[in-house]
Amino acid sequence: MAAATPQPTSRTRSWWGWGWADAHPDDAQCAAMGALLPGTLSRPLPVPRVRDLGIGRPALEPPASLAGLVASDPADRAAHAMGKAYRDVVRALRGRPGRIPDLVARPADEQDVADLLHWAGDRQVAVVPYGGGSSVTGGVEYRGDAHRAVLSLDLTAMGRVLEVDAEGRAARIQAGTLGPSLEDQLRPHGLTLRHFPQSFEFSTLGGWLATRAGGHYATGRTHIDDFVQAMRVVTPAGTSASWRLPASGAGPSPDRLFLGSEGALGVITEAWVRLRERPRHKSSAAVAFADFHAALRAVRALAQSDLSPANCRLLDAGEAALSGAARDGCAVLVLGFESADEPVAARLERAVGLARSYGGRYEGTDGSGGAAAGAPDGGAAVSAWRSAFLRMPYLRDGLARMGAVAETFETAATWDRIPGLIDAVRTEVGAAALKATGHPATVNCRLTHVYPDGAAPYFTVLAAGRAGDEVALWDDLKAVAGEVLHRHRATITHHHAVGRDHRPGYDRQRPEPFALALRAAKGALDPRGILNPGVLVD
Amino acid sequence: MAAATPQPTSRTRSWWGWGWADAHPDDAQCAAMGALLPGTLSRPLPVPRVRDLGIGRPALEPPASLAGLVASDPADRAAHAMGKAYRDVVRALRGRPGRIPDLVARPADEQDVADLLHWAGDRQVAVVPYGGGSSVTGGVEYRGDAHRAVLSLDLTAMGRVLEVDAEGRAARIQAGTLGPSLEDQLRPHGLTLRHFPQSFEFSTLGGWLATRAGGHYATGRTHIDDFVQAMRVVTPAGTSASWRLPASGAGPSPDRLFLGSEGALGVITEAWVRLRERPRHKSSAAVAFADFHAALRAVRALAQSDLSPANCRLLDAGEAALSGAARDGCAVLVLGFESADEPVAARLERAVGLARSYGGRYEGTDGSGGAAAGAPDGGAAVSAWRSAFLRMPYLRDGLARMGAVAETFETAATWDRIPGLIDAVRTEVGAAALKATGHPATVNCRLTHVYPDGAAPYFTVLAAGRAGDEVALWDDLKAVAGEVLHRHRATITHHHAVGRDHRPGYDRQRPEPFALALRAAKGALDPRGILNPGVLVD
Repeated sequence: MAAATPQPTSRTRSWWGWGWADAHPDDAQCAAMGALLPGTLSRPLPVPRVRDLGIGRPALEPPASLAGLVASDPADRAAHAMGKAYRDVVRALRGRPGRIPDLVARPADEQDVADLLHWAGDRQVAVVPYGGGSSVTGGVEYRGDAHRAVLSLDLTAMGRVLEVDAEGRAARIQAGTLGPSLEDQLRPHGLTLRHFPQSFEFSTLGGWLATRAGGHYATGRTHIDDFVQAMRVVTPAGTSASWRLPASGAGPSPDRLFLGSEGALGVITEAWVRLRERPRHKSSAAVAFADFHAALRAVRALAQSDLSPANCRLLDAGEAALSGAARDGCAVLVLGFESADEPVAARLERAVGLARSYGGRYEGTDGSGGAAAGAPDGGAAVSAWRSAFLRMPYLRDGLARMGAVAETFETAATWDRIPGLIDAVRTEVGAAALKATGHPATVNCRLTHVYPDGAAPYFTVLAAGRAGDEVALWDDLKAVAGEVLHRHRATITHHHAVGRDHRPGYDRQRPEPFALALRAAKGALDPRGILNPGVLVD
Repeated sequence: MAAATPQPTSRTRSWWGWGWADAHPDDAQCAAMGALLPGTLSRPLPVPRVRDLGIGRPALEPPASLAGLVASDPADRAAHAMGKAYRDVVRALRGRPGRIPDLVARPADEQDVADLLHWAGDRQVAVVPYGGGSSVTGGVEYRGDAHRAVLSLDLTAMGRVLEVDAEGRAARIQAGTLGPSLEDQLRPHGLTLRHFPQSFEFSTLGGWLATRAGGHYATGRTHIDDFVQAMRVVTPAGTSASWRLPASGAGPSPDRLFLGSEGALGVITEAWVRLRERPRHKSSAAVAFADFHAALRAVRALAQSDLSPANCRLLDAGEAALSGAARDGCAVLVLGFESADEPVAARLERAVGLARSYGGRYEGTDGSGGAAAGAPDGGAAVSAWRSAFLRMPYLRDGLARMGAVAETFETAATWDRIPGLIDAVRTEVGAAALKATGHPATVNCRLTHVYPDGAAPYFTVLAAGRAGDEVALWDDLKAVAGEVLHRHRATITHHHAVGRDHRPGYDRQRPEPFALALRAAKGALDPRGILNPGVLVD
């Protein structure tokens, strides 16, 4: 089949902050947000400029045979220096970004990737695979000085849906395909991947696979892992190509070794992924809970039922207020059902009934009104949550410009640990922020994904900063959070990946024999240690 | 919690054939079965006796500190020499079993396992992990002569459910727990793993995990993999213990490396597994199809719907006749729904309606009668299939005693390949059997598991043998089958595992860079190469 023209856009990406440059809050909006947080700056830090970074010549030039794939202008290099974590944004605002890569390569096909790796291996050049650049864990930057030069390997020129198997509902898609383009190219076939992480606009299929991204579905198949039918991965030791199979029991899964390998074992170039028909039936509702712990029990019951809601996100009172879903101190459960196959209203009704049996107050279905006193109607609550969900990273950057701390982190744990874990994170991170800044901090929580055996809490921290020292302050708070997670045996990441920022927590969590196996695999596939150095293994 | 007494039994296991010794068909029954297959023997081969094997003294004695864990009597050693493939049964019948292990160890806990591995590593003793011994792919025997002695590591003394988390529906279970004992120990808690492979009575949790066993559910979460919350694995390089997590995105999954590792990377000692409430609602039905290809389309539509049948097994006409589900030349689709949560009758009704829209003829629901002319009613068809399913391995051994070839193999492929694959296996394996024996062979097919993107066909081959040369004959037929699978890019195994018998197909299917990584991991975890030598890597 002929593929559509991939990924056209006329808008400009911000080199230093989230998303589109034209979508950032302006100075006045930043100041207004800052005014809500005592202890922040009185005026926003200026938007940083690439020319102030004093970027010099690259340490190395590519050979003529690869020159056509490689850029070395300062703007491109600056835009590929870091991901989009709060600490990355602050480093840009403070004029102290991570190590600027020497070169940015944009391979057009798999052979280009292999050629670039071959050259990089010969010259001891570090290769940092780069999709949409939306890492919030330091996954796409270089730290250290063990390499002669740093090459950012930007896959977005490989952005096509190459084949569609309509009968088997699968497609072969290049790794550099950004979310919106991927869905645009599938739409004419009536199919959808339905993988909508918060970073959807600015992340790629390859990035999702390399980081085991969490997506649209709040229950069941929450991670991209389960949607992979086959993968191609270029390693310095050769190209790995697994077969298209609906399932297999032939040894440990090859794909599962590369899923989550974060560019350290190879460069994912394409995958066959499992698709769905576009849903024809959708229904959503909001349920308010005065008692957060009762809401947790309700969500557990939902996760253990056969109802399989596509959306089942529980916002605590602070998070509900922040997103505009509720302002009366209630927690809000956002429920959604969808199907291409059959009406979902009966499932929604059963789910709402179950939630009410735990003390939930039904706030009306999407668009149907039926508001209870003191809270917006369900439709408005659901919409408010959705729009805040997509807008949040921009607001975070605006707060960063005001010298505030504004960041998120996420985890997962079994149900027996969830209430204590959430309480401990709120208490201990809040106390640490107060102690460090002298101002009370906001620590909100929502459950983004729920399982029969546990849940994935997602925390938002809003606090006054420490002018000029925001990165160290955040690192301290994150270390406190990491300790709480470790004590509660909660994973260091449910879907944000390990990157470089989560290495200490990951190293403690990972079973040591598995670390031995992973190091050995790294040594076999990347014997010169050029692939995303510092990620997963040293 | 206190665990129940594990795995009591008063029946005797067959050392040479499937299951219970007292459940084998007698000589007259064998002869009656053989009479249905032209070219077989006129009387059954005698039941083999251990004393005829001339088993000598073990090559090595264990040290005094481990002697209490280790047996070396001929009966125990013979019973641990092989798995239960057709070729294993024939080797026993012909008095040429695989290499008899020198010792059989039964560790009582994880420390015993570590101690045994330590001793074996020092003495260059091969260790073959052994659960229920039901491997049908040569997974639990030793081949070659590179080791000083062979130790069969029988885990069945570790057969307890150690902890139950009722709130989070999970349990910590020792790897040597056999299927029935596992369910017996969970029953008082109202919970069930619902993992019912055909080998259920004679296989263990550890075996299921090591081989990525396929289980009860015909759709959705078909493999044991998805039910694993955490695992403990003893390797010569240390013990791997993953955290109990409902989900995680922290690097490649440690558990997924050990799932399917078939004892080559470590010895699985226990796992936390995800459970379900025992179903309160069940409903099943049979639908007959005159046209097998129309039935395939119906099954694909069911797999792509939101209906999630627990059972969705399509028997072709030959398989339906063999199991007694139908005798009119029709294919039969056995459908089943179950839930602890809500009635399932409406889902069954929709599924049957969908099947009818592809030309299916509704045969009545389980127990409700409603038979159509020319076929048994649905309830009888479903029961016939279930009882034949469990009885089949015994009948296979009876046929083996008649010198017949009676064996199965299974695979999985995407839907676009399914019709051609099934036709090619039938034609080419049938032709090879005819050529080799001079008698027409039966090659039946059923789909055991179905997916939105493909299906798992399971083939039964019944043919005259070649007296005294049955193993070579079967190996030839299996090689023909392997070529067909490879040509159709169908996996060498969907859930029977690789073992030693599937190595050639596995080696061709496995991506070479993954093989490099796996060999490196093996070298790191088992540097002396004592663990199940010859499995997965050399």
